[in-house]
Amino acid sequence: MFFGRGVNSRVGEELASDGFSSVLLLYGGASVKAAGVYDEVVRSLAGHGVRFFECGGVKPNPSVSKLREAIGIIRSNEIEAIVAAGGGSVIDSAKGISAGVRYDGDVWDFYSRKAQVGPVMPFYAVATVSATASEMNCTSVVTDDETEVKTGLTDFALFPSKTFIDPSAQFSVPVKQIADGGIDAVCHVMETYFDGTPDVDLQMEYAEGLVRSLLELIPKAAANPRDYEIRAQYAWAAACALNGTTWAGHSGKGDFASHAMGHALSAKYDAVHGETLSIVMPNWMRYVMHGNLYAFARFARRVFGVDSPSDEDAAREGIERVSEFFRSLGAPLRLREIGVPEEDLEDLARKAAPGSGVGSLKKLGVSDVLDIYKASY
Amino acid sequence: MFFGRGVNSRVGEELASDGFSSVLLLYGGASVKAAGVYDEVVRSLAGHGVRFFECGGVKPNPSVSKLREAIGIIRSNEIEAIVAAGGGSVIDSAKGISAGVRYDGDVWDFYSRKAQVGPVMPFYAVATVSATASEMNCTSVVTDDETEVKTGLTDFALFPSKTFIDPSAQFSVPVKQIADGGIDAVCHVMETYFDGTPDVDLQMEYAEGLVRSLLELIPKAAANPRDYEIRAQYAWAAACALNGTTWAGHSGKGDFASHAMGHALSAKYDAVHGETLSIVMPNWMRYVMHGNLYAFARFARRVFGVDSPSDEDAAREGIERVSEFFRSLGAPLRLREIGVPEEDLEDLARKAAPGSGVGSLKKLGVSDVLDIYKASY
Repeated sequence: MFFGRGVNSRVGEELASDGFSSVLLLYGGASVKAAGVYDEVVRSLAGHGVRFFECGGVKPNPSVSKLREAIGIIRSNEIEAIVAAGGGSVIDSAKGISAGVRYDGDVWDFYSRKAQVGPVMPFYAVATVSATASEMNCTSVVTDDETEVKTGLTDFALFPSKTFIDPSAQFSVPVKQIADGGIDAVCHVMETYFDGTPDVDLQMEYAEGLVRSLLELIPKAAANPRDYEIRAQYAWAAACALNGTTWAGHSGKGDFASHAMGHALSAKYDAVHGETLSIVMPNWMRYVMHGNLYAFARFARRVFGVDSPSDEDAAREGIERVSEFFRSLGAPLRLREIGVPEEDLEDLARKAAPGSGVGSLKKLGVSDVLDIYKASY
Repeated sequence: MFFGRGVNSRVGEELASDGFSSVLLLYGGASVKAAGVYDEVVRSLAGHGVRFFECGGVKPNPSVSKLREAIGIIRSNEIEAIVAAGGGSVIDSAKGISAGVRYDGDVWDFYSRKAQVGPVMPFYAVATVSATASEMNCTSVVTDDETEVKTGLTDFALFPSKTFIDPSAQFSVPVKQIADGGIDAVCHVMETYFDGTPDVDLQMEYAEGLVRSLLELIPKAAANPRDYEIRAQYAWAAACALNGTTWAGHSGKGDFASHAMGHALSAKYDAVHGETLSIVMPNWMRYVMHGNLYAFARFARRVFGVDSPSDEDAAREGIERVSEFFRSLGAPLRLREIGVPEEDLEDLARKAAPGSGVGSLKKLGVSDVLDIYKASY
């Protein structure tokens, strides 16, 4: 990882020294251009003799159709690597493309579990938004618009070859997006923390410290978007929230049922990822807390200083504090706030909990998810 | 890293799958045989057709002469990789050997800064004692008996290719050695924590959590040496104490002046590493605390729950608590306790602070080190 002011101008040099002379430059919308990142990366590529082809227009809740388009461009040209300049959607897309380009079938096969990731094309991440930690992990989340399925793929082959984070290139991220991304990061830590295991004290300490840091940094970053020091600390903390540090050695690897419930909402209404989490997460926590009351109570005490002697009361108060934090960032807490029709809840529940259900701390079937959606309404 | 019961039996398989058929098996004394690790590794090598040559007898405060012996064995035979089965001394030695075997000059050149590490021979670490974190970092500390210099070498090329930690293979580590190793681990975290920078809140959180974990785990491990769960958590925490987690993004990379002062004692009297630290560390802390009072006070409050409103008082009380912890493990707090003659202090100080001095939070010259040794007497 290259971290700090100006690192994005090193992309061309790193590609050239890794032996690549022709790349696909993948990005999203206007923001990567407005922030100057596009120009900086393009100059850096040109300066080191690296040719590039472009594929712009990656959207939030990125679509598998865009992955297919990019794979087509790579196959029609002599492209050797991918540079993904953007936030989580762009980097997640690059992972799917990198797996899909050297695979005979359709790239969605990886997401539908029809195929396992084989040989991949190397990709480089230039993180212009810090939220999902995609820049420091091997997970990709993509949506199939036709079937309204948004789902994740994790494979050790999908780590970026190199990642570049210049916090000053993130100054123009809208305040609303900082808050949404921050909620995502906090949820990532909680989803691994609460998964079943009070068995590695050190990782629980790390997770608690990380959430305390995030709770301080997110409102500070939203209030001071051009403060380099705050943005740098936040960018680093958001990456650490889903880079493996928090669950190393855990017997559980995270219960992402709340992410799955959020994904169903995003797939159907293109809902903002952070908003789906601020709504669903506290209600998921209430629904599953008795499966790991020790962790829920410990979290409340150590992160929020809750001093109730009863684990049950402490856990509940901790969940309230999480809700209050989300609300303080202007995030919605109810599905009705984002315009979800109540009559859709059953269909959503079926999509969020396909097959044998979702989650690990507590395996949730369709009726469990429906209960959580109703509580979130 | 392969971590858990039985992983040492996978050494042969991993070597074979990495393409190696002939290795040097490096180890220390009788303990690796008594614990059954030697037999397990040898069986595993034989089971996968990996030939091995032996080099035993690596001692605590390992000597460069043993490195030269091992390099000779490797050069006289067709050896492709090294397996280091032991504690920090054995793994530190393997790092020097791996650098020295493909270097034309004498291996001490790396430690005396006459040469930079070039091509290395891959080495595999089987950690039978958890203390130094050598199994998860790229630092090697070796002693030149003739000149009484014990010094460290750090280079990214010196990470183990793969590390194996079976906590149950550490059950027979003597209780005294658990305490000494634990003191080493706690000091590693403090040395990076106090180095100058209150600039990455997350890494300070991680370090504080790690020390809290270690303070609980070390006495538990000493009292229950055959409790797998405790030994496993301790082995992992000790590795994390010097694997880079605590200083990622820090502007300082650690002030190891107290380690250097300890090394001078070990080189001259073959003193136990953990004992040199329990004596020197608190006095180093008192001597330098005004260079980073924020961190010293924060550490006291967050690790020991010190509630003094004055930073100065909190910092001093925190240092007292560190001393008390070391004493509670039966460790010495005074140089006189380990038989150091008072008249040697000047010579020791010259060896601990060669050239322009030692340390970074506060650069210590010979007279500073002498003051600290005197305060430690």
